[in-house]
Amino acid sequence: MDQSAVPVVSAGPSPERAPRVEGTLEVVPLGGLGEFGMNMMAISWQDTTILIDAGVMFPDPDQLGVDLIIPDLTYVEARRPQVKALVLTHGHEDHIGAVPHVMPLFDGPVYGTAMTLALVEPKLEEHAIDPGDRLKVVKPRDVVTIGPFAVEFIRVTHSMPDCVALAITTPVGLVVHTGDFKIDQTPIDGEHFDLHRFAELGRRGVLALFADSTNVDRRGFTGPEVEVLDAFEELFTSTHGKLVVAAFSSSIYRMQILVDLAVQFDRRVAFVGRSIVKNAEIAQRLGFLHVPSGVQIRESEVPSYASQDVLCITTGSQGEPQAALPRISIDDHRFVRLGPDDTVVFSARAIPGNEKAIARTMSHVARRGADVVTDTIKHVHVSGHGSVEELKLVLSLVRPRYFIPIHGEYRHLSEHARAAQRVMSGLEPKLQVLLAEDGDTLQFDAQGARIADKAPAGRVLIDVTRIGEVGDEVLRDRRHLAGDGVIVAVVAINKQTGMLVGEPEMVARGFVVSESEAASIFRDGAAVVAECIGGSGVEERTDQGLMAEKLRSELRRFFKKRSGRRPLVLPILMEI
Amino acid sequence: MDQSAVPVVSAGPSPERAPRVEGTLEVVPLGGLGEFGMNMMAISWQDTTILIDAGVMFPDPDQLGVDLIIPDLTYVEARRPQVKALVLTHGHEDHIGAVPHVMPLFDGPVYGTAMTLALVEPKLEEHAIDPGDRLKVVKPRDVVTIGPFAVEFIRVTHSMPDCVALAITTPVGLVVHTGDFKIDQTPIDGEHFDLHRFAELGRRGVLALFADSTNVDRRGFTGPEVEVLDAFEELFTSTHGKLVVAAFSSSIYRMQILVDLAVQFDRRVAFVGRSIVKNAEIAQRLGFLHVPSGVQIRESEVPSYASQDVLCITTGSQGEPQAALPRISIDDHRFVRLGPDDTVVFSARAIPGNEKAIARTMSHVARRGADVVTDTIKHVHVSGHGSVEELKLVLSLVRPRYFIPIHGEYRHLSEHARAAQRVMSGLEPKLQVLLAEDGDTLQFDAQGARIADKAPAGRVLIDVTRIGEVGDEVLRDRRHLAGDGVIVAVVAINKQTGMLVGEPEMVARGFVVSESEAASIFRDGAAVVAECIGGSGVEERTDQGLMAEKLRSELRRFFKKRSGRRPLVLPILMEI
Repeated sequence: MDQSAVPVVSAGPSPERAPRVEGTLEVVPLGGLGEFGMNMMAISWQDTTILIDAGVMFPDPDQLGVDLIIPDLTYVEARRPQVKALVLTHGHEDHIGAVPHVMPLFDGPVYGTAMTLALVEPKLEEHAIDPGDRLKVVKPRDVVTIGPFAVEFIRVTHSMPDCVALAITTPVGLVVHTGDFKIDQTPIDGEHFDLHRFAELGRRGVLALFADSTNVDRRGFTGPEVEVLDAFEELFTSTHGKLVVAAFSSSIYRMQILVDLAVQFDRRVAFVGRSIVKNAEIAQRLGFLHVPSGVQIRESEVPSYASQDVLCITTGSQGEPQAALPRISIDDHRFVRLGPDDTVVFSARAIPGNEKAIARTMSHVARRGADVVTDTIKHVHVSGHGSVEELKLVLSLVRPRYFIPIHGEYRHLSEHARAAQRVMSGLEPKLQVLLAEDGDTLQFDAQGARIADKAPAGRVLIDVTRIGEVGDEVLRDRRHLAGDGVIVAVVAINKQTGMLVGEPEMVARGFVVSESEAASIFRDGAAVVAECIGGSGVEERTDQGLMAEKLRSELRRFFKKRSGRRPLVLPILMEI
Repeated sequence: MDQSAVPVVSAGPSPERAPRVEGTLEVVPLGGLGEFGMNMMAISWQDTTILIDAGVMFPDPDQLGVDLIIPDLTYVEARRPQVKALVLTHGHEDHIGAVPHVMPLFDGPVYGTAMTLALVEPKLEEHAIDPGDRLKVVKPRDVVTIGPFAVEFIRVTHSMPDCVALAITTPVGLVVHTGDFKIDQTPIDGEHFDLHRFAELGRRGVLALFADSTNVDRRGFTGPEVEVLDAFEELFTSTHGKLVVAAFSSSIYRMQILVDLAVQFDRRVAFVGRSIVKNAEIAQRLGFLHVPSGVQIRESEVPSYASQDVLCITTGSQGEPQAALPRISIDDHRFVRLGPDDTVVFSARAIPGNEKAIARTMSHVARRGADVVTDTIKHVHVSGHGSVEELKLVLSLVRPRYFIPIHGEYRHLSEHARAAQRVMSGLEPKLQVLLAEDGDTLQFDAQGARIADKAPAGRVLIDVTRIGEVGDEVLRDRRHLAGDGVIVAVVAINKQTGMLVGEPEMVARGFVVSESEAASIFRDGAAVVAECIGGSGVEERTDQGLMAEKLRSELRRFFKKRSGRRPLVLPILMEI
């Protein structure tokens, strides 16, 4: 990443409402308007298109056979030569996860803050993409010029460091995109939400505001990250054994709070779980996370310290079968074991759909005798998204002519539209809300603004089969998915012991191999199932969530290796 | 139901700690200790067993093919002649839903309050069970004698009227079972939690306390039901169209608050949805719900009133595909339609696992232009279960020798145990916690108490196929389920239109019919799928939750009719 050669104009011209010109500004949301996740948007003027964010979405647990979802990129592919840049607001997966899929589709730079781009880099490595000098680090208040656009970065606060909103000067006026934000007035790193810049923009006149709707259904103000301090202080005081805190791997502020408490209470800190180890390393390298020397230990060192001297910060707050805490909770982790004096804290919200998996993980933890602490028991989590009063505050400051709610399911967008109409009623010119969804083409010109057309948009499913070290990733739309067929594995297990009862049955459709070949593959597949079950502990075997995921992953790898095909694998576990 | 001939001793002897005797009291939880739902417990002394509650559990959405879950009744069947009575704490499904399955297994009476038994009656009717004079209505402070036991009913507050706890005098001491409760100090019906009786029992000495753990993970005090009044008053003031409130069908207090506001704001009230109509009728008949004459209208009358004059109280707060609100939300209800001025309130918590279905329903409502109000937006729901401070209060009052947390997953029981140990530390005699799970046999005798043995316990799945008017119910354990086989229907649909693409594929295992018969059944089954999809609206077709449930129900009915068998039917919808 070339940090020196960034073509930014640090004290650039203030974006002002542009004079009326001939032409149409076209904005197409490609993801995040109608769902949470896979946030992405394209903004075009004549032959210049810039992209804002390129995120992924995680599938529901019932979307078996799918690891990730990215936006349909047909629209981007169709305008390949026009796409001049990708601009990132912050480093969360739902904003940068699809960068490796988007970068090969155009030639220009990718702008983002230092933290954001540092999180992009390992993704590119995993995909063997050499970014050359395309990654351009920017700072808040920097302005970069991309064809007819001038993009200014504005600091916002959120649940991780180095997040920005965008103020984009276009030929027809100023467009503001909030990214994700809350208004944290006592930020952990002292870097405040740039209220003044939002106020200035509002005073000068904003054509259109695109604003985060995630928490529009929460009343009041979200509250600062530092609020969790009291609860954790209590836990550090009262816990006589290990303290294990599961958090989102991007929650750098949360990590800082925990590290500071660990220092105060004389505990060593181990980051446990691949993504949290990686992010902690990046954040320390960039100076966003400060761990005094001698405090951090490796997860392999955890067993050599007394329980009361250790804090583990782990992945797995969502009960993900392969993540650290769910493995720890069934005694299936190499280094971390739970005992009766330990306390396990779920310091994250439950992403809808994950509740059952989280509940199972909690019960496994409780069976080890450890205390389970959730955010209903103590205030150990605070959201990174602004509640309705914060959303209204940004509207009041920016006073846009047009308002487009983004980031949410339809009902969040529509609720945000209502809130905006209440805030802006009586103001002149009257606010107009464009309630758009993915693929809707928004046009802005001298005549006004409208939803004009439908661009191709949708979801592309991604299936990652890990064979050996390197992830082997396939992109496929649902058509392709059907093309490789479906294999349903009906597996009967004993409800007490979790052991296999009888032979697993494999049922295939659209999985095209010869009949004799199929017979042999299915016979061996059944053996894979038997081996997988036999090699698992009793708690794992009787936890349908864990076992189904493990079988799916094993079978998928097996079918890939044996047939070269990637059927959708659906394990159906029946307890007998 | 014979209300006069109840053998109760209204001013009976106060239960006191019994003298030491030879013999062992055996308590076996058959459900609700390790899961939420299907609450049931057996208490035995020599040749007398009494059962406490007989509840159902609702399956996860991913447990396709299952409608209800009841406790394994093997233990009850094995002691058929000893079982002398069933005692009910209150009328929620998770406490009375399995009564029709339990009543045929013994000959004695079923004790419950008027409201509880009134909710049991229609269930018996549906199962064509004539209770004769077995239903015995009791009131709080009544005492009934059952062999060596004297059971006293004690009023508690909860989210519905007429709920009781139990104080059971046994030969080895007094056993208290809280049922479900919170401590509502301003109850809607003026009937207060009987704190004084709990205090008296505690003073006299309680051997064992069995207490509800549902909300042990919430800090503080739950707060009274009347707290929702302010939010609803605001909604009545601000809503210009119909007000549609989805609530649990047993939330009689919530209904009363809404009816009172409707009277005040001059709206007519329609109860919409089978179970809510039935419960409102029962509650009115028994005097627990007061609707002034002229206020209530039938759902069929809704279209003849102006929107601003109507309040609908509906089922479907969990997004259940067949319930009123989800049907209304896709314009598929005979009488209730939503428009832009209407407001739809979700006045219930989301039961874990239902979040996705609820979110889909909300987005359908938003697409109709109606405002969606949830309990995160306004305070439109309050729990019926006590939070940790209320649970601790009951412990402080009752001061038992042994404490057994009930009603919860393992981690709730274990959290409740910790809370109890904190409350009772320092008190003499020292509290002992028995952390039991379904099937654990608890023994109490002169030597103390212990978990001694494992009784048969587990879950039985129930599948209700409705052919015509009457539900045709099958009880089957998982073995039986496997016996009738599994049919997976792989259905490809167009992701925009939801229309069928190609032929549905039927894949069967263990569904024993001849090959030629199977071919013809599957061909016709495919036609059923095509017809079912063709006859549904586009929103329904593209809502996987709704469509999968509809296909499942149609196919199940079809297979039953054609083959006489009841295979587990799993529709797999693939969008192409």
